Amino acid sequence: MKAELISIGDELLIGQVVNTNASWMAEQLNLIGIDIVQITSIADKKQDIKASLDRAFQHSDLVMITGGLGPTNDDITKLTLCEYFNAKLQFNQDAYFFIEKLFAQRGWKTVTELNRQQAEVPDNCKIIPNHNGTAPGMWFEDKGKILISLPGVPFEMKAMVSNYIIPQLKEKSVIHIFHKTLHIQGVGESFLAELIKDWENQLPVQIKLAYLPQPGLIRLRLTAKGKNKAELETSINAEIEKLQPLIPGFIFGYDDDLLEKVVGELLSKHKKTISTAESCTGGYLSHLITSIAGSSEYYKGSVIAYSNEVKMNLLQVKATTLEHYGAVSEATVKEMAMGIKNLLQTDYAISISGIAGPDGGSEEKPVGTIWIAVASDKAVIAEKFLLGDDRGRNIRKAALSALNMLRKQILLKCS
Amino acid sequence: MKAELISIGDELLIGQVVNTNASWMAEQLNLIGIDIVQITSIADKKQDIKASLDRAFQHSDLVMITGGLGPTNDDITKLTLCEYFNAKLQFNQDAYFFIEKLFAQRGWKTVTELNRQQAEVPDNCKIIPNHNGTAPGMWFEDKGKILISLPGVPFEMKAMVSNYIIPQLKEKSVIHIFHKTLHIQGVGESFLAELIKDWENQLPVQIKLAYLPQPGLIRLRLTAKGKNKAELETSINAEIEKLQPLIPGFIFGYDDDLLEKVVGELLSKHKKTISTAESCTGGYLSHLITSIAGSSEYYKGSVIAYSNEVKMNLLQVKATTLEHYGAVSEATVKEMAMGIKNLLQTDYAISISGIAGPDGGSEEKPVGTIWIAVASDKAVIAEKFLLGDDRGRNIRKAALSALNMLRKQILLKCS
Repeated sequence: MKAELISIGDELLIGQVVNTNASWMAEQLNLIGIDIVQITSIADKKQDIKASLDRAFQHSDLVMITGGLGPTNDDITKLTLCEYFNAKLQFNQDAYFFIEKLFAQRGWKTVTELNRQQAEVPDNCKIIPNHNGTAPGMWFEDKGKILISLPGVPFEMKAMVSNYIIPQLKEKSVIHIFHKTLHIQGVGESFLAELIKDWENQLPVQIKLAYLPQPGLIRLRLTAKGKNKAELETSINAEIEKLQPLIPGFIFGYDDDLLEKVVGELLSKHKKTISTAESCTGGYLSHLITSIAGSSEYYKGSVIAYSNEVKMNLLQVKATTLEHYGAVSEATVKEMAMGIKNLLQTDYAISISGIAGPDGGSEEKPVGTIWIAVASDKAVIAEKFLLGDDRGRNIRKAALSALNMLRKQILLKCS
Repeated sequence: MKAELISIGDELLIGQVVNTNASWMAEQLNLIGIDIVQITSIADKKQDIKASLDRAFQHSDLVMITGGLGPTNDDITKLTLCEYFNAKLQFNQDAYFFIEKLFAQRGWKTVTELNRQQAEVPDNCKIIPNHNGTAPGMWFEDKGKILISLPGVPFEMKAMVSNYIIPQLKEKSVIHIFHKTLHIQGVGESFLAELIKDWENQLPVQIKLAYLPQPGLIRLRLTAKGKNKAELETSINAEIEKLQPLIPGFIFGYDDDLLEKVVGELLSKHKKTISTAESCTGGYLSHLITSIAGSSEYYKGSVIAYSNEVKMNLLQVKATTLEHYGAVSEATVKEMAMGIKNLLQTDYAISISGIAGPDGGSEEKPVGTIWIAVASDKAVIAEKFLLGDDRGRNIRKAALSALNMLRKQILLKCS
């Protein structure tokens, strides 16, 4: 099955918004074996939308368009699709049901006229429920070709694609594609490539390998395509078993795993609790931990100690330690970790202190110098990291490195 | 002048790489008054490239393509352009000069044969110097239409666009474009549309309005195009002045402003300090505040109080308050805000307690119920929000709502 993605919106054409919707959708469709032949961004103009649809259907079986479904006057996708299919707008009871439900959930008073009109859809489509917004998705099918129209709001679109569209499209496909993704932390891309070079060279031709680096993480994705699903899975799993002993400690998870989730599951499993004391990461580590639903089971709380007073008064870091070694030092992070562990009475504690940048560095401690400590009932270990000069990336890398240090400590102590 | 951007590369079509090149180029061209009518991503295939060029030139005067100019076999753009223009590859002395210069600068030994071949370009183009890589850009001009081919490596492409292409194109252009973006918090898209309906209807035809919603925020963009730059600016500013009194308190900034930055600047300006006590947002509010470089000037720290023990022991929330009203209540957030303000001795304090979801709701307090308090030296105010059932969005919306509450308090107290 070949597909084209069409994103509608002037904001894309003036460069105000980066088209992350299209790349996300391309990735999802690719995972179920659908080839994307073109991605197109066009303006909110009727004739442009119609011309793009005509062209796209010349080479694609599936066209997915996003955007232009809001309640306001500049949202013209629905009317354009009516004209394109020679259809009429019709009030759809199911679509209205979801709009009313959303209003009730949010405690909004009455459905406004503009929102009521969003329940009107062309009479030749099925609606795709939108549980996160007022614009329903629309699924058109005509002479073996499929057109799907979705709102451009990323989280609305994503939920509709994951929960409704992908399962429906999967049923139509005969070629299987099997992916397995390994999540890796604590090693750079080129160093990793050296470590696994021989393994990579011996991979069978039908298995493709992709490096997908992100700040502080690398994903390695293995892909095989074919008619026998079980065979694909067996061959990929065999290769992963060969890979694991080459990079122990770096692989923290597979497929949908997130480091913060893996660590949370370990804490849950061993009935251990955690607290954090953060300086340069400013709450981002706590945010990662608490982004996991149910984290209150193992996470008690944190102190964000941006100023030295807070480090001393709340975390019991000694004034002499700060004076002799500075806030970014092994001695300080160790005292911070012990301080928060005692204060919140947890089994483990993580502390981070560093220079996130872009300013505040010195010759001795340049921007990107980060100390991280992990305290358990038995010991406090600390590690120094030398990261780059981008504040946002340093914060994320430091938090991920801290989580991986904790993960390894739990595995060591609890195994 | 109308333009189309064509990005070449399989990595775009499988969603491995987000097309940030195109949005950056679109922004640069737009700023000099060039209209982007389409952005297209296609595969590394000759026939796809040729078909896209044919189509693009039907509606555009300028086509810019990126990618496929590397030294390896899968880089086919140059050969395809030769075929497209019926041209021949010719060794270009200027292009070779820049390649040799780059090798000398980087201390690389000798120019390899593969890199030498990169100095061969179609004989009907001018080269565009590339000071950061070995692939020269190419500028074709034929019957009043321009085709520009650039490498896909972002920093190589950007330097060539900024230093060479934009100045050349500017000389050809007479039309200016002026944008102004308003950032809005605290009101939903359709409510906002209702509030400003009359203003929107009276906008002069040459001013276009776009709604750009994000979780917890809306951007409103006004755009005008014409020959007189000063006139465009004046007419947009006049409309913004009419809009401001219609939605007081909701507009927090313009153009590149971020709410966390605006709030930080207000705190700096008035020499005030801030601390936060977070429950359901789990550190995300602190993360937003500290994502701004220099925030240590006004931000002292936070307590993330996920458990009731931490709320009582560190923030001095009374056991009876938690018992009678629960952790998600007006009384509790007010005590949390006062507690952290006293503990860290700051001028302002924000506290948040709520049910982020997806579980933990009840009939009385459904998922998405969030209480936020802002304490100053004079008062503690609290507000209740009813958000949705998506944990990540609830966390972000709550943090943004809290920052906007603080912003309004500072404006009220310090004006």
